[in-house]
Formats: sequence, structure tokens, C-alpha cells
Amino acid sequence: MKFARLGTPGAEIPVLVEGDRYLDLRPLTSDVNGDFLAGDVAARVAAARDAGELPELPDAAGMRIGAPIARPSAVICIGMNYAAHAAESGSEPPTIPIIFLKTPNTVVGPNDTVTIPRGSEKTDWEVELGIVIGARAAYLDSPDEAMAHVAGFVAANDVSERDFQMAVSGGQWSKGKIAFGFNPTGPWLVTPDEVDHRALGLRSFVNGEPRQDSNTSDMIFPVEQIVHHLSQYVTLEPGDLILTGTPQGVALSGKYPYLAPGDVVEIEIDGLGRQRQEFVAWEAQK
Amino acid sequence: MKFARLGTPGAEIPVLVEGDRYLDLRPLTSDVNGDFLAGDVAARVAAARDAGELPELPDAAGMRIGAPIARPSAVICIGMNYAAHAAESGSEPPTIPIIFLKTPNTVVGPNDTVTIPRGSEKTDWEVELGIVIGARAAYLDSPDEAMAHVAGFVAANDVSERDFQMAVSGGQWSKGKIAFGFNPTGPWLVTPDEVDHRALGLRSFVNGEPRQDSNTSDMIFPVEQIVHHLSQYVTLEPGDLILTGTPQGVALSGKYPYLAPGDVVEIEIDGLGRQRQEFVAWEAQK
Repeated sequence: MKFARLGTPGAEIPVLVEGDRYLDLRPLTSDVNGDFLAGDVAARVAAARDAGELPELPDAAGMRIGAPIARPSAVICIGMNYAAHAAESGSEPPTIPIIFLKTPNTVVGPNDTVTIPRGSEKTDWEVELGIVIGARAAYLDSPDEAMAHVAGFVAANDVSERDFQMAVSGGQWSKGKIAFGFNPTGPWLVTPDEVDHRALGLRSFVNGEPRQDSNTSDMIFPVEQIVHHLSQYVTLEPGDLILTGTPQGVALSGKYPYLAPGDVVEIEIDGLGRQRQEFVAWEAQK
Repeated sequence: MKFARLGTPGAEIPVLVEGDRYLDLRPLTSDVNGDFLAGDVAARVAAARDAGELPELPDAAGMRIGAPIARPSAVICIGMNYAAHAAESGSEPPTIPIIFLKTPNTVVGPNDTVTIPRGSEKTDWEVELGIVIGARAAYLDSPDEAMAHVAGFVAANDVSERDFQMAVSGGQWSKGKIAFGFNPTGPWLVTPDEVDHRALGLRSFVNGEPRQDSNTSDMIFPVEQIVHHLSQYVTLEPGDLILTGTPQGVALSGKYPYLAPGDVVEIEIDGLGRQRQEFVAWEAQK
């Protein structure tokens, strides 16, 4: 099952995506938020659909695509979770998950324009598998319990400014991760039954040229271990978003130039859809 | 002007505090949230009070005190912002503000019980001046613009687990900062006209014995500079909370033991009120 949110920022309409059809979820919920995702959301939606309670949304194809989840309470990121990316960043592979956070106002639609911050010379892309939490998780006893707390998966671009992240940060990465709109998300929230999250190809492109090309099977800490580990340190809530780290092939490697105004980034994950963002100078958006 | 929120968690009633009287703000707002704080909140509240539109809340003295702000969108923290605390932590004073984030579900009432996380041996206290944002702030041109974006100030305890923060974190501090309830806040949100935020004494106590005793005048980066600096990296939104760093006198210094179940932490800031938390073992709260 695929969910999306269509419409202008702040007024998105929640929909069920079935092929080329978009069924309006508003008879069930005001938004794709924590309350909606708690419990067995797929069963509730299927029952409503089968009862004919979800009308088709007209003109959906022409609407802006928002992030497929309402603004999360928390966006928790795992750093250096692919060995080849740790190497290109000049780091050893971590022996325990590394956590940092993004602010919730980084989350925007998958095709929204992204602003390169004032003073930035090192704005970079990061394709990542995102986990959306469906049930509160605290102190899970094992990774086997993790998937019962997951509502689904999304594609995300963990946009990063490397000087803000590392040169002027005192070593704490968040400063380079929290500019407004630095987390294009979607187009879809896909329930776990539709994808094998342990083996999804994920790729990024800049101006049509390939950059990252890897597979979630290369993660050092897989999805279940991440959710279990995080639950020892933070109470995960329905609607929270976890970004699981990026593979090799970013500009930080030195192999590619950083982003400049006019550049177009595309990212895609098997089964989770494709994004396309134009990057613009901050003066254009102040 | 002082605002507070009284009642059970998740159902707090917003009030105006005037001496021993608590005036119900619900004729004006459902909560002390970003929408309420945007614009000249003090003028709107004064007008309603003077018109007799805010009834006195009965039985207020017996009610639980919640955090004085609704759950923020973001909790942004400044690290090592007092030179003597940087020294006791084994660090040089920073030359630029260091940013890390806490999750919004750390924010709880000033006297709520705090759970020592599972596996914790190094749970620590940190009294801090908190800034509550009142108007959206992005790319401010100078620190002189900062106070126009501040709704008020709060006392906060930036509770920290030092092994989670530093030993098992890969160097990213958030892992030791985000346990549920690790940010007792309040009792009051105090508007800027009522306090001189540049010279407030702030103190902490454990089981009645003094620990921290400093003054916000000792900050390396003062309030105005913090808001200006942050606005270059993140869009601050009404209702967001910024913690401005803690002075010397925490357990990390080696001078005092870390917290154990049954310990009582009290913190206070001149003009912003006093908190009291009992710390309990995680088994008691699972």
C-alpha cells in the first residue's frame, strides 16, 4: 500500500495511491500523521477502500506532491552506515550506530526546490532509505521486535552542507543538516509488505549523471538493528522519521563538484519512487 | 508577564500567572504554542485581561505544572557556552557556537519525575537558560535583530547521559540527550521585559546540596548572538526552544557523583522560577 500527500505546502490532501489512481483518504483521516499510522493502518484503509468510502481525487496528476508524512515530531539520522561512504568521508566504519538529528522543518516534498544556504560552498546530496514509525517504541528487547513498530518506508535526500557540518560546527554535525528544506521526502510512504527493505537499490544523479548506486543490503546496521538500538536511547513515536545513512558517491568524496544554483538532483529507491529537486541560490528564496 | 500550563500531561490548561492568581487563557488560545506566541502576545493578553475576559482558574495551586510551552517543533542546544564548564569537560572554549538537538518529547514539566535510562551509570544535570522563539527567524542580518524574534525565557534542565553522549556515540552528543523526559522546562515562560536575560543567576542542587552557581553574564555567546548565529543555519519557528548551555558544576567534572534512583535535583534561575525532579530507575517507568 502506498500513501502520498498532494497539494500546496501546509494544505496537502492525504491519498492512497493505486497505480494511476489517487483515492482521497480524508473520510478516514485529516493527514498521514502519527494518529493515522498508529495500529494496523493498512487494514483500516483496505476496509474503507473496499467499502467504496474513498472517492477518487480528481486532477491529482497536476498537483504538487508533498512529503508523504505530516511534519514528524523527530527526524533521527544514522551516520556512516555504509562502509564505502565512511571510507570516502575519511572515517573508519562505526562499530555502533552514530545518531544525529535534523529539525522537522527540513522535511519537504520530493520535487520541491531546495535553497542552497547563504554562504554555502559545499552543499551535498545523500540518498537514504527512511523508516516511518507506526507504533511507539521504547526499550525493545531485540531487533526481532522492530518491524512491529514500523509503518513503512520512504525515499529521502539528507541534504548536507559540509563546511557547516564539519568546519564550523565544533564536530557536531547538525549545523550542516538543518537548513529549511534540507530533507526532500517521498513521493510515497510504502508499507513494509510491498518492498524487501533489506535489498533495495538506491541511486542518485546530478544533472542526469550517476552519482550514488548502492543497495540497502550494504548497510552496516540494518533497519531492525537501528530501530532496536534507537529505542534504548529515545522513545520513538508514530510519525517519526529515521534516515538510515547514505552510500558512497557524494561530493564529500572529492570525486564530484558540490551543488551550484541551477543543478538538478534526482534520487530513487527501488519500489519507493523517484525525486527531482532543482537547487537555487538563497537570495532567490529569502 | 508569566505564562504557565497546568494539568495532566497532554491536557494542560494555558494560564497567565499574576502573583498567586492564575488566569485562564483559553478564551484566547488553546495552548501556549507557536500560533499564540507569534506577534505581540503580551499586548493581546493584557488587553484581554484588562477587559475581564480571562477568568481565574480555580484550584490552580493543586494542579500539576506542565512545561510552559506546548511541544516545540525543535529543541536546539548550544554546547560548551560557559568557559568554566568547557574546562571541567576537558575542552577548550569554543570559538563558534556548537549546536546539537534534543527531541521534542524530552520536554516535560518542571517537577515531573525523570527516568534514569536503562543501562545508565552517568546521568547528569545541567541548568540552562532557555529561549522561546516568538517570530520566525531566518538569515538575521545582525544580533540587534534577535530580540524581536524572542517570545520569552524559561528555566530548563538539559539532562544528559555522559556515556551515551560520548562513549557510545561516535562523538555525536545527541544519543545522550534524547531520553524521554530529559528536558524538564519551566515553571514559567517569562516575557523579556520582566528579566534582564544578560545577568541572571542560575543554580542547581542535588539532594539540597549546591552544585552549579553561575550567571548568564558568563556566557561565551550571549542570547542575541546565539539567535543571530542559529538563524544562518536553521529557520527558527515560533514555539521553538533554544537551550543556551550550562555552567560549571556538573557530575562530568568528577567533583560529584552521577545521579542515582531517589536523588532529587533542583534548578533555579533568577526571575524564571525553580524546578524539583525526583530521579527514578527505568524499571519503574517502562
